[in-house]
Amino acid sequence: MTGRPIPVIIDCDTGVDDALALLFAVRHPGLDLRAVTCVAGNTGVDGVVRNTLTVLEQAGAPGIPVARGAERPLVEPPRSARHVHGEDGMGDLGLPAPARTPADVDAVTLLRREILASPRPVTLIPTAPLTNIALLLRTHPEVTRNIARIVFMGGAVACGNATPVAEFNVWHDPEAAAVLLTAGVPTTMYGLDVFTRVVVPGPDVRRLRASTEPGARLAGELLAHRPATPDADPADPGGGIGDAGAVCAVADPAGITTRLLPVEVSLAPGPARGQTVVDRRPRPGEAEIHGEGRSPGLVDVALDVDVERYVKLWLATVEGA
Amino acid sequence: MTGRPIPVIIDCDTGVDDALALLFAVRHPGLDLRAVTCVAGNTGVDGVVRNTLTVLEQAGAPGIPVARGAERPLVEPPRSARHVHGEDGMGDLGLPAPARTPADVDAVTLLRREILASPRPVTLIPTAPLTNIALLLRTHPEVTRNIARIVFMGGAVACGNATPVAEFNVWHDPEAAAVLLTAGVPTTMYGLDVFTRVVVPGPDVRRLRASTEPGARLAGELLAHRPATPDADPADPGGGIGDAGAVCAVADPAGITTRLLPVEVSLAPGPARGQTVVDRRPRPGEAEIHGEGRSPGLVDVALDVDVERYVKLWLATVEGA
Amino acid sequence: MTGRPIPVIIDCDTGVDDALALLFAVRHPGLDLRAVTCVAGNTGVDGVVRNTLTVLEQAGAPGIPVARGAERPLVEPPRSARHVHGEDGMGDLGLPAPARTPADVDAVTLLRREILASPRPVTLIPTAPLTNIALLLRTHPEVTRNIARIVFMGGAVACGNATPVAEFNVWHDPEAAAVLLTAGVPTTMYGLDVFTRVVVPGPDVRRLRASTEPGARLAGELLAHRPATPDADPADPGGGIGDAGAVCAVADPAGITTRLLPVEVSLAPGPARGQTVVDRRPRPGEAEIHGEGRSPGLVDVALDVDVERYVKLWLATVEGA
Amino acid sequence: MTGRPIPVIIDCDTGVDDALALLFAVRHPGLDLRAVTCVAGNTGVDGVVRNTLTVLEQAGAPGIPVARGAERPLVEPPRSARHVHGEDGMGDLGLPAPARTPADVDAVTLLRREILASPRPVTLIPTAPLTNIALLLRTHPEVTRNIARIVFMGGAVACGNATPVAEFNVWHDPEAAAVLLTAGVPTTMYGLDVFTRVVVPGPDVRRLRASTEPGARLAGELLAHRPATPDADPADPGGGIGDAGAVCAVADPAGITTRLLPVEVSLAPGPARGQTVVDRRPRPGEAEIHGEGRSPGLVDVALDVDVERYVKLWLATVEGA
Repeated sequence: MTGRPIPVIIDCDTGVDDALALLFAVRHPGLDLRAVTCVAGNTGVDGVVRNTLTVLEQAGAPGIPVARGAERPLVEPPRSARHVHGEDGMGDLGLPAPARTPADVDAVTLLRREILASPRPVTLIPTAPLTNIALLLRTHPEVTRNIARIVFMGGAVACGNATPVAEFNVWHDPEAAAVLLTAGVPTTMYGLDVFTRVVVPGPDVRRLRASTEPGARLAGELLAHRPATPDADPADPGGGIGDAGAVCAVADPAGITTRLLPVEVSLAPGPARGQTVVDRRPRPGEAEIHGEGRSPGLVDVALDVDVERYVKLWLATVEGA
Repeated sequence: MTGRPIPVIIDCDTGVDDALALLFAVRHPGLDLRAVTCVAGNTGVDGVVRNTLTVLEQAGAPGIPVARGAERPLVEPPRSARHVHGEDGMGDLGLPAPARTPADVDAVTLLRREILASPRPVTLIPTAPLTNIALLLRTHPEVTRNIARIVFMGGAVACGNATPVAEFNVWHDPEAAAVLLTAGVPTTMYGLDVFTRVVVPGPDVRRLRASTEPGARLAGELLAHRPATPDADPADPGGGIGDAGAVCAVADPAGITTRLLPVEVSLAPGPARGQTVVDRRPRPGEAEIHGEGRSPGLVDVALDVDVERYVKLWLATVEGA
Repeated sequence: MTGRPIPVIIDCDTGVDDALALLFAVRHPGLDLRAVTCVAGNTGVDGVVRNTLTVLEQAGAPGIPVARGAERPLVEPPRSARHVHGEDGMGDLGLPAPARTPADVDAVTLLRREILASPRPVTLIPTAPLTNIALLLRTHPEVTRNIARIVFMGGAVACGNATPVAEFNVWHDPEAAAVLLTAGVPTTMYGLDVFTRVVVPGPDVRRLRASTEPGARLAGELLAHRPATPDADPADPGGGIGDAGAVCAVADPAGITTRLLPVEVSLAPGPARGQTVVDRRPRPGEAEIHGEGRSPGLVDVALDVDVERYVKLWLATVEGA
Repeated sequence: MTGRPIPVIIDCDTGVDDALALLFAVRHPGLDLRAVTCVAGNTGVDGVVRNTLTVLEQAGAPGIPVARGAERPLVEPPRSARHVHGEDGMGDLGLPAPARTPADVDAVTLLRREILASPRPVTLIPTAPLTNIALLLRTHPEVTRNIARIVFMGGAVACGNATPVAEFNVWHDPEAAAVLLTAGVPTTMYGLDVFTRVVVPGPDVRRLRASTEPGARLAGELLAHRPATPDADPADPGGGIGDAGAVCAVADPAGITTRLLPVEVSLAPGPARGQTVVDRRPRPGEAEIHGEGRSPGLVDVALDVDVERYVKLWLATVEGA
C-alpha cells in the first residue's frame, strides 16, 4: 500500500454479499469509505437501510454517513429478491437493530454532497440496481467532474441469473444501467463472469464463524448463508464473497483482467431485456443498423479474476491481519 | 373567482408557448405561481432558464423562484426542437438578457422544497418533457402527499407531431412520461387533441402587438411567431396559445371535457415509441396479454375544449382586464 | 356496370361478416369471384373451410374453388375470436354441413395458380389475418405481376378493437401484415375507421330474415347476429356489413374516400404491437430515426365511406335486385 | 456404418461452406441426399442456385433435385454477406456455369414433395437463413409427420458474429428462426460455439488443392478461401469446414455434445435482435414474466465438438477414402 487511501462511496442493497463488501471496505487501509447509500433491490429500501446501519456498527464503523435512496426502479415495477436473501435480505440471522438512523438527506443528495466535497476524485462502487446512480447522474451531472471511476457489480458477458442472459442488478432497473453506461465516466463492469468465482473455502468460513471479533464473526455467518454453487462440496461448501469482489477490484485492480469493450443494455421488452450486450467479436460486423440509436459505451469489462489473490486479500482485510 | 388562489408550479422548456403559459399564470388571480422549473426540450436547458427569467421580468413577476433542471432525457439522447422554435427557442425575437440568475438549487430540489412548503396541495403543470418530474417522483416520492394534481401538456389520442403517433414532449422522454403516468397522482392529460385548437384570432394578435404594456406586447409578438396551422388564413393567421391551454385548464377546468381512461406510454423501439396509448374502446378486449407488464394508469384525458372560452380567458388575463 | 367483371379472390376467416362479403361477391355482376382461400382467425381453419363451403352453397355458388390455408399466424401463437363470433365462428346458427370438400391443394398453391391463370390482373380481397397472403408473397413473389390491387379489411387509423390501438386482423398476425404493406403492390386499407360504420337498418334486416331465398335469408340471420354497436337502438339494432364493405370498395371504389399515406405496422412487443401506424401529419417530422429500419409503405387508406351508398349497394346485390 | 442411409435434405445459401457441406453429404455412404433447396443469404438466391448446381456437378452428383426458394427474409429487408463470401458467394473462384437448371417447382413445394415421398422420415439440414423452412412449416404443417429431426447451422450460445450476440443465419431472418424453434420437431442447434472450431489443418488443405479429383480439388480451393481465424498461423492457416459440421452431426451424432435447453429467439428491435437466448442457468429464475409470450422451445444445443473426429470424418469422406 503506497499513497493516500482512495475515497470511495458504496451504493448497495444490503443484502448478504453487500455486507461482505462493506466489512471489507471499512477495514481496508487503502480505502476511505466516505458514505454508503441504499437502494431497493435484494429487499425493500427500509430493510436495506437497517441492514446497512447494523453491518457498519458490527464492523466498528458507526460514523459513516448512510442515506436512504430509491424505493423502486425508474420504469420497472418494484420487485424483490427476497427468496434468495431471506426475509430481511440478510439471511435472517437475527441481527440486532441498529442504534442510529440514516442521514436526514436522501441518497442522491448525499452522493452529490460527498462527491463534490471530496478533496480527491471519488470512486463509486454500486453493488445494487443502479437507480440511485442514474438519478444522481441526471439530476446532478456536475458530479462527474469529481468521480474518478465507477466500478459496479452487475451485468454478465456469458450467462445471466435473473434471466438466461440478464444479471439481477441490471435486469432490476435496465434503464438506470443504460444511464450509467452512457455517462462518459471511466467504468469497470464486475459482472457475473467473475462475481460467482471468488469463493472462500469451507475451513476459512468455519474459522471466521468461530471468531470473537463481531465483524469477522458476522462475515463468517453471512458466508455460511451464501447459497452454495451447484457443484460445491455439500459437506463444506465455502461461501462466495460476491459483491465484495467489486471492492477488491478497487483496492487491488491487478487482481482482475479487464478488456475495454462496447457494452449496451438491451432495453426492449422480451427475453433479452436487461442483458448487457458486450461486443467481444474479433471483427465487429456491419450489423449495428439494428441498434436502438444509442451508441454503446466503452467499459472495462472484467473477464477474469485471480481467485486466490482476492480470497486472501478479503480474508486478511476482514480478519484484520 | 371564489376562494383562495391555487398554488401551482410550472415545469417548462420556454419556448414560445411556454412563455404564453407563464404570462397567463402570473396574471391570473386564481393562480399562485410559486416556482418555475426548467428542463431541456424545445431548446437546451441554459437557454430555457434564460428565456424563463426574461419572460417573468417582462411579465412584471421577477421574484418567482426559477431553477435549472435536467440537461437531457432519462434514456434518450439529447435532442432539440430548435427548427420549430428558433435558435433561442423563443422565436429569435431579440429579447433582453435577464437581470437575475436562477436559484442556487437545482430544479428537483426546488420542486421538492416548494411542494412540501406549500400550505395547501400544489398543482403541477409540466409543459415540457417530463424529465424533471420523473426525477422528482423517483428521488423524493414523499412529495406526492402534497400534490393535488398534475396537469401536463403532452401526449395525443389521435395523431402525433414528433412522429405519426407521438407528441413531442412524451416522445422526447418516454420513460419519464411513463413514470408520471404510473405515479398514482390525479393527472390530467392536456394533449395535442386540444392543444392545437385554441387559436387567438389575427385581430387580437395585432392588438396585443400594439400594446404598450411589455407583457401583453411580448404575448403578441410570440403569438405572431407561432407557426400557422396549415389551414390558417395566411394574411392574418392568428396564433395558438399552445401550452397556455394547460394552465387555463387549471384556472378554469370546466373549459375542457375529460374522460378517465387507461393511458400507457409505448416504450419499445419502433414507430410507436413515445405514443400515449389511450384506451377509448367501448368494450376493452382480451388482448392485454401483449402488454409490457406495466398496468396503464387511469388519466383524465382532455378530449374536447371550449375554444372561445379559453381564448377569452387567456386574453382577458394577459391584457390585465 | 360497364366493362368486363373484375377478377377477384377473397381470402377470409368466415366468420359472420366474411359470409356477408361472400354473399355480396358471388352476386355482384361486376365481380368475378375466382377462388376463396381460408385462414385461421375468427375461428380455426377447419371451421373456416366448412363455413365458407356452406355459405357458397347457400348463395348458390357451389362451384367456386375453396382451399384451406394457414392454421396459425407466422410468429404469434394461435388464438381465436370465438367469443365474438360464436363457437363455430358463424353465430351458431345451426347451418347445414357443406356437401363438398375443399380443393386438394392448399391456399397458397391455389392463390398462385388462380392469380397466374387469370387473363386479367386479379384484385385480392383479404378480410382476415394476412398469413396466407404473406406466405404467398414470400413463397411466390412472381404473383405480384398479375395482381392489380390488394384491398384488405384490417388496420385502423384512430382506434383499435383487439387492443386500444390495434385492429384484430393485423394484431392477430402483425408480421404478415408487415409483409403485405411492404410488398410494393397497390394496396387499399379498409380499416376500422370505415368498417364499423356501414350498418344495415333494422327494418331491412327484418325483411332479409323473412326472405324465402336462402342466400338473402342467411344474410339476414347473420346481420341479426352482428354485435350491436353500443349506441344502437336495442329494440331494432340493425347489423353492420363489416368485411363486406371491403368488397363494396372493389365493386364501387367511389364509395370510399382514400388518401395515399405512409403506413407501418408496429411489431415490437408492448401496447402498440399490431397497430397500423398511419402518418396523417400535415408536416411529417424529423423523428423517423426511431423507426425499425423498414420504410413505411404508401397505402390508400380509407378515411371516409358513403354509408348510405354501400348499404344500398349491398342490399340490392344480395337481394338480387 | 450399419443400417440404411439416412434420408436428408439440405437447405442452403451456397456459399463457400455450404459447398463443403454438399461435397460431404453427396459422398457420405450413410446419407441419402434427396434434394437441395436454395435461399437468399450469403448471396442472392439466383447466385445460390447457380453455385449449388455447380458444386453438385463438380461433386459428381448432378441428378439431385435443386429448387430455388425465398428471395428475401420474412420481415427483414433483403441483405447480403457478399463482403465475406466474395461477389459470387463462392470466393470468386471462377467456377464453370452449371449445365442444368433448377427444378420447375419452388423450394417449398419441393421440400413438401420430397419429405412426404420419403419412405423413411427425413432429416432436414438447414445451413442458411431459415426462410424456406418457416414458409414450409406454416404452409404445409403436415410435413412434420415425416421429419425425423432438424439439424440446423445457426444461432450461438456465447458470442455472435453478425452482431455481438447474434449469429448471421438467425439474425438474417429472426422470425423464421422463431418459427423453426417452436415447431415441435426434434431439433439440434449446431451454432457458432462449435461451428468455428472444426478447422482442417494447412497441410491437408494443400493436399486437397493438389488433387486431380474435381470434388476434392474444389473442397481444397474453398477451404483455402475460408477466412482464417484471427489466431491462425498466417503462413498456413488451414480452413474451417463451417456448415459441413452440421452434416457431420447427422452422419456421426456422437461427435458433438448436446444438452436439451430452452432456446428463444430475441425478436424485439435493439441490440439483441436475432440472438438465440439459451437458458444455461443451473437454476432458472422467476424472471420469465418479461418474455414475449412465446414459450421457448427445447432444443438439443451443441455445446462441444470432437474437432479431430470431424476433421478426419470430413476429409475421409470428401477424399473418397
